[in-house]
Amino acid sequence: MARNKDKRGKNKKTAGAPPGTLVFTGERKAEKARILYTKYNEVDIAHREISKKEIPDPEDNHVNWYDIHGLHNVELIEGIGQKFGIHPLVLEDILDVNQRPKFEEYSDGLYLIIRMLRFNEVALEVETEQISIYVKEGIVLSFQENTESTFSAVIDRLLAGRGKIRQRGADYLAYALMDVTVDNYYTILDKVEDVTEKTEERILNSPDSKIKSQIHNLKLQMLLLRKSVSPLREAINRFSDTDSPILKESSQVFIRDLYDHTIQVMDMVETYRDILNGLYDLYLSEISFKMNSVMQVLTIISTIFIPLTFLAGIYGMNFDHIPELHYRYSYPILWAVMITIAGILVVYFKRKNWI
Amino acid sequence: MARNKDKRGKNKKTAGAPPGTLVFTGERKAEKARILYTKYNEVDIAHREISKKEIPDPEDNHVNWYDIHGLHNVELIEGIGQKFGIHPLVLEDILDVNQRPKFEEYSDGLYLIIRMLRFNEVALEVETEQISIYVKEGIVLSFQENTESTFSAVIDRLLAGRGKIRQRGADYLAYALMDVTVDNYYTILDKVEDVTEKTEERILNSPDSKIKSQIHNLKLQMLLLRKSVSPLREAINRFSDTDSPILKESSQVFIRDLYDHTIQVMDMVETYRDILNGLYDLYLSEISFKMNSVMQVLTIISTIFIPLTFLAGIYGMNFDHIPELHYRYSYPILWAVMITIAGILVVYFKRKNWI
Amino acid sequence: MARNKDKRGKNKKTAGAPPGTLVFTGERKAEKARILYTKYNEVDIAHREISKKEIPDPEDNHVNWYDIHGLHNVELIEGIGQKFGIHPLVLEDILDVNQRPKFEEYSDGLYLIIRMLRFNEVALEVETEQISIYVKEGIVLSFQENTESTFSAVIDRLLAGRGKIRQRGADYLAYALMDVTVDNYYTILDKVEDVTEKTEERILNSPDSKIKSQIHNLKLQMLLLRKSVSPLREAINRFSDTDSPILKESSQVFIRDLYDHTIQVMDMVETYRDILNGLYDLYLSEISFKMNSVMQVLTIISTIFIPLTFLAGIYGMNFDHIPELHYRYSYPILWAVMITIAGILVVYFKRKNWI
Amino acid sequence: MARNKDKRGKNKKTAGAPPGTLVFTGERKAEKARILYTKYNEVDIAHREISKKEIPDPEDNHVNWYDIHGLHNVELIEGIGQKFGIHPLVLEDILDVNQRPKFEEYSDGLYLIIRMLRFNEVALEVETEQISIYVKEGIVLSFQENTESTFSAVIDRLLAGRGKIRQRGADYLAYALMDVTVDNYYTILDKVEDVTEKTEERILNSPDSKIKSQIHNLKLQMLLLRKSVSPLREAINRFSDTDSPILKESSQVFIRDLYDHTIQVMDMVETYRDILNGLYDLYLSEISFKMNSVMQVLTIISTIFIPLTFLAGIYGMNFDHIPELHYRYSYPILWAVMITIAGILVVYFKRKNWI
Amino acid sequence: MARNKDKRGKNKKTAGAPPGTLVFTGERKAEKARILYTKYNEVDIAHREISKKEIPDPEDNHVNWYDIHGLHNVELIEGIGQKFGIHPLVLEDILDVNQRPKFEEYSDGLYLIIRMLRFNEVALEVETEQISIYVKEGIVLSFQENTESTFSAVIDRLLAGRGKIRQRGADYLAYALMDVTVDNYYTILDKVEDVTEKTEERILNSPDSKIKSQIHNLKLQMLLLRKSVSPLREAINRFSDTDSPILKESSQVFIRDLYDHTIQVMDMVETYRDILNGLYDLYLSEISFKMNSVMQVLTIISTIFIPLTFLAGIYGMNFDHIPELHYRYSYPILWAVMITIAGILVVYFKRKNWI
Repeated sequence: MARNKDKRGKNKKTAGAPPGTLVFTGERKAEKARILYTKYNEVDIAHREISKKEIPDPEDNHVNWYDIHGLHNVELIEGIGQKFGIHPLVLEDILDVNQRPKFEEYSDGLYLIIRMLRFNEVALEVETEQISIYVKEGIVLSFQENTESTFSAVIDRLLAGRGKIRQRGADYLAYALMDVTVDNYYTILDKVEDVTEKTEERILNSPDSKIKSQIHNLKLQMLLLRKSVSPLREAINRFSDTDSPILKESSQVFIRDLYDHTIQVMDMVETYRDILNGLYDLYLSEISFKMNSVMQVLTIISTIFIPLTFLAGIYGMNFDHIPELHYRYSYPILWAVMITIAGILVVYFKRKNWI
Repeated sequence: MARNKDKRGKNKKTAGAPPGTLVFTGERKAEKARILYTKYNEVDIAHREISKKEIPDPEDNHVNWYDIHGLHNVELIEGIGQKFGIHPLVLEDILDVNQRPKFEEYSDGLYLIIRMLRFNEVALEVETEQISIYVKEGIVLSFQENTESTFSAVIDRLLAGRGKIRQRGADYLAYALMDVTVDNYYTILDKVEDVTEKTEERILNSPDSKIKSQIHNLKLQMLLLRKSVSPLREAINRFSDTDSPILKESSQVFIRDLYDHTIQVMDMVETYRDILNGLYDLYLSEISFKMNSVMQVLTIISTIFIPLTFLAGIYGMNFDHIPELHYRYSYPILWAVMITIAGILVVYFKRKNWI
Repeated sequence: MARNKDKRGKNKKTAGAPPGTLVFTGERKAEKARILYTKYNEVDIAHREISKKEIPDPEDNHVNWYDIHGLHNVELIEGIGQKFGIHPLVLEDILDVNQRPKFEEYSDGLYLIIRMLRFNEVALEVETEQISIYVKEGIVLSFQENTESTFSAVIDRLLAGRGKIRQRGADYLAYALMDVTVDNYYTILDKVEDVTEKTEERILNSPDSKIKSQIHNLKLQMLLLRKSVSPLREAINRFSDTDSPILKESSQVFIRDLYDHTIQVMDMVETYRDILNGLYDLYLSEISFKMNSVMQVLTIISTIFIPLTFLAGIYGMNFDHIPELHYRYSYPILWAVMITIAGILVVYFKRKNWI
Repeated sequence: MARNKDKRGKNKKTAGAPPGTLVFTGERKAEKARILYTKYNEVDIAHREISKKEIPDPEDNHVNWYDIHGLHNVELIEGIGQKFGIHPLVLEDILDVNQRPKFEEYSDGLYLIIRMLRFNEVALEVETEQISIYVKEGIVLSFQENTESTFSAVIDRLLAGRGKIRQRGADYLAYALMDVTVDNYYTILDKVEDVTEKTEERILNSPDSKIKSQIHNLKLQMLLLRKSVSPLREAINRFSDTDSPILKESSQVFIRDLYDHTIQVMDMVETYRDILNGLYDLYLSEISFKMNSVMQVLTIISTIFIPLTFLAGIYGMNFDHIPELHYRYSYPILWAVMITIAGILVVYFKRKNWI
Repeated sequence: MARNKDKRGKNKKTAGAPPGTLVFTGERKAEKARILYTKYNEVDIAHREISKKEIPDPEDNHVNWYDIHGLHNVELIEGIGQKFGIHPLVLEDILDVNQRPKFEEYSDGLYLIIRMLRFNEVALEVETEQISIYVKEGIVLSFQENTESTFSAVIDRLLAGRGKIRQRGADYLAYALMDVTVDNYYTILDKVEDVTEKTEERILNSPDSKIKSQIHNLKLQMLLLRKSVSPLREAINRFSDTDSPILKESSQVFIRDLYDHTIQVMDMVETYRDILNGLYDLYLSEISFKMNSVMQVLTIISTIFIPLTFLAGIYGMNFDHIPELHYRYSYPILWAVMITIAGILVVYFKRKNWI
């Protein structure tokens, strides 16, 4: 669980720091910060990595997308904040990477926090990465620490000119980024389902000691997932309801669709939690059932042989006067008695459904 | 559980595909796509299978019902979409067969997703099939992958001219289709009840190892049912509240009635979940109780015979000087002592209610 | 549980039947249908059984109450429906006796479904009977399958002229019928409480195998009760809020009072469910505790005698050279050793609080 | 639990009685009915017990408080009802002492039901007593069965002229009565806490058989408390929101404060329920843990001595040809073997952390 | 748990005391009361401890902050109340240190109760301290019993002139005080997480008897935390919604941010509760699993040796006529039989996965 540290713990900069102080609260993952700049409209498109020193001004009649990787470079973020006139509290939230997903509306921009998820199949853990999206008229800024190309699918679509993405504005681009992120949740849930199914089979076949910590861990992951998805749903709902001019009416139907997806994901998370609770119950009853059958074996053997051993003990005594010892057929008679006792007990256990 | 794959998993087309791409996300069930076309009004009716190539135009003053089977034929769906002016996002939802039931209102059409359920009595599993219904003025389009005649009861009523269905419009036809679907839920629940009752009897008579996985499975099925019914209730509620001119006022009382049915189904699903949880508790306590009685038998037998065997062991020792060995009545006296001890223990167990 | 069939299962006529088809979905209980007709105003009253053939017209300036028993006689119900102008969907609901309690307002009538409950003290089961009440200006129609005189208390009050019932209208009569029904719920709950208390005592005194199925059954009955009461509360609430002229303002305070009663009943049902869950926990911990004490007895006896038996076994061996066998005081010394060992173990168990 | 009868059971007069019939539904506690009459304003105050025959008229410019004890005297209550013009349904509720706390507003009076609680420290049971308060302009009527001076603290404050109670009106007096009642809930909860703490200590030190029924009982008491407090909160909320002229604006801040207290009490009740559930879990795991350690002792002793006893048994056999019996050092060698086996087993158990 | 007394118990002054009586209900922690007085505006600042006798009047054009420690000095609080015109009910709440966090709006002041939390790492207990904040135009009064410098971080920021705190008004100062308090909750939760992680590891490695009471205690602490945070969230929400002129519009965005933090804390508390419940389940299944493996060892050893011991007992009998005793190879044959039996049982246990 220690590995979850950076996801669950360290939730805030030092208590007591004045609000508005810019501190990166995450773990440094990127070697160095990078900025990918894409500008496009219906007719042309340019996509390149730009220098941190000279950030080009946004071009008119284009959608300008600055995809910033590397939040550990606080000065860079601060510089971008000043260049694009972002509110200090937003900058603080961008750098404090343990925020809940949320949507905030400012006079000239919309701010969204979402979380990209990855499923570590070895540790069976969900890893999350905070992504901040800031949308202004004609401008989209996306911030994350990771340098992995989370949004490569969107870049491909932009370059290929597929769909109508090139004909639409910055709000649609923001939607596309969120859509890619939420689509990814389904992949996570598919993997969780695979693991859950395998766990169920293992419980029914050979419940071993590791299963219980695995179920425990999966339940934990569902808690973390829910923590990411539940506020996201709310944030997207508020995003779709905004009357900011930045969000065009034609995009709203897409945001609604995205909202439906988050509801569906939330539904699935809750369903998996219920399924995992059911698995845990199944495991417990499997253990109980197994213990019961172990007890039955012990009881059958003990109950049959303990009285017989007692009888053998009786005639192993060394009293001078035990008349039975000297009868001719004592030995075979005793065997007959013993077999009868054992037979009666076997019948008794059969009736009790123990055998 | 592997068989549930297509119901729970694979919930979306490839992450990253642009929204609006038409991809069939289900499992191909139909050999080839079919379209059943029924047109009727109060005086005449025609019902026939039509060619996928030449889809006839809807006739005025009639209700025109196109019942399309075979969603795997994406071009067909696309063609129909264009012919009837269906929004691309609707087409996408029709083909993405893992949607939650929902209701959407477009400027010239109403779109409903419901799920037809089937109960596989061998696997004790609920199988679901997405049905999309699109209603326009005078036109009803129903879409599903399966070629089974889900709606044969409605067709029979139309042909027989029974009820008032022929005198009413497209909205009433859509209602009739949904009503048939929801009525079917009761059949499922009846079957679930039968299985539940049998399970309860088995628990009380002979709780075996399979029961726990059966209860687990039934709980799982209830989760899946709830996942289908809960949003359906909401969808029908919104359908009944719509002020679209497509839904006539005279039909609204029927939709309300249908809404009552979904509430009742939801109620029953929740009740069965509670009953199944109760069954699981019953199973666990049955196991505990049985283990307890197994332990009691073991304890009674052991506690009586272990001390007696010890006594027999004492007089089986080969010490040269054990005075009791040589007394005349040692043997019968020992028997008397042993019987007394056993008697005291039996009384003790009787008092403790173990016998 | 099989006996619950008619209450929980068979919830609908054959799936696919057109809406509005009149089918009686219950179990025939009455030999033949009967109609009790009571008309009264402040000054006179008449009460008699009337023929199914000639149903008298309602008399002006009187409250006319037709108490119809025997829903299996579908033609009778249909005839009454036509005579009093009842909507076909209402007739369908009257005959479909597995409805949830509900309230519906029609242009010239109010329709209420409530459920009369009976507690079968042998089977410890709640049996329910659907009662439909249809109120028009000056007319009350009550429908049920059972021929038992459910409403005899109301008839007695009418005949005796007690209370103000004779001075008030049809709406008050409908209230009185519902009030008698809801009052009866308290009787049921009192009986449930008696059974619950006896069960608690039995758990603490001698938890046997039947208790767990009894608790299970009581929980089931509470689920069924809740299923009846929860929608009734809602129905009465909507009834009290109606602005139909049929419900006089002077009666509304009584309906409110009735509503308070349903809340109280619901409260009690929930409380009993919690109590029963508590009882189940108590039962489980009783079993655990008992198993623990059984284990302790087994462990004490085994732990004391198994080592001693081993020692006795040692000196029962037939080796040629066992020096202890020949010492003079071996036997009493061995006894001393054995008693010491047993004493130490007894002290150990005392310390562990096992004795 | 039988003692709870009068609190939980007997909730209503005989089913079928006409609404408005006055029947006392409680248990007679008072020897004979008493009325305490207090009239006061800012300058003078009089407090005395008055005769049931001649109830003095309320005096103008004074607050007139009639504190009636002894609800079993139905005629007295009826007479008071007529004298002060109380609605028959209110009188019925006053006498039916199993009501939920509630607030009702009548044209010229406010009616409140609250419950006084007592904690019986011997039976560990919460006993409740229904108190009805009826407030009119300048008049407060309080009704209860018990003759104990529940409100002596208020009388003392009135007589002493402490606080501002004498300067305020009937509404403030009603508030003061409720405040005393609610304050008392804290005392109950403190006692519940004491018992809970002692129970926790007993579980951790020596979990005996009585604890589980004690926890069960405490949970039951919390259910009863919640049943009293939950509707009281709602009632006081509605009381504080009333726009009746009887409730002065200056008193509203106090009612709000009282409302805060009921929320706090409700919070505490819920917290204690959670704590008690936690205690129950603790008890169960304590039992499991203890059973586990009992099993370990049994297993260690049995596993060590059963094989050794077997070996001893081997050489106790009387076969003519057992070569080992005649070797010189067989006996000490066997001892060595036995000690080695025992040693290996001890090491094994040490590794498994059983010793 | 006894140490929690002052936090959970003693919740109110003596029942029956008139409302408005000033009584300190907490435990005296401070040696003597202290008042820290800070006045500042954008240009100058003064911070000093002032005498309880002569409290300086607030200075115009400054924010005047009186930080009062030592609620046990009731006269002091009363004097301050009079000097600053605080409502008696507020004073009562300041001294009654077992209040839920709340927000109240008075005509010329805003009153807030929050709770400062400390985590006692030895006892693993959350200790809470009530802090009252009263804000008027240009004046902030903070009250607490403890003399520890809870707010030193704020004082440092004021003195250093860092951030914009000096340029803003009394409302922002109140916000800053609350922000410091809420920030501290994260520290508590981090510590709870550390303990939780260690507990999880201990459960999986060596579940001992203390763990269950530790989990129980942590769950208790989460209940206490929730009791503090849940009403705080509501209070801050109402604070942010107030339209009092004391709260400037420019501060509202900060209060909203604070509100987000309380939601996040509440989320985390709920998540930890779920995690702790999961841990408890894990512990229980660990115990069950361990018991199961103990039982298996016992059963294996007993089941193998009990029948063999019986056989040895048979041939230890002293009957005159046991033919086997005299055969030449009886002894080795018996050994062979015994080894065969043991081998069969071992194979049987292997198949059952017990070895």
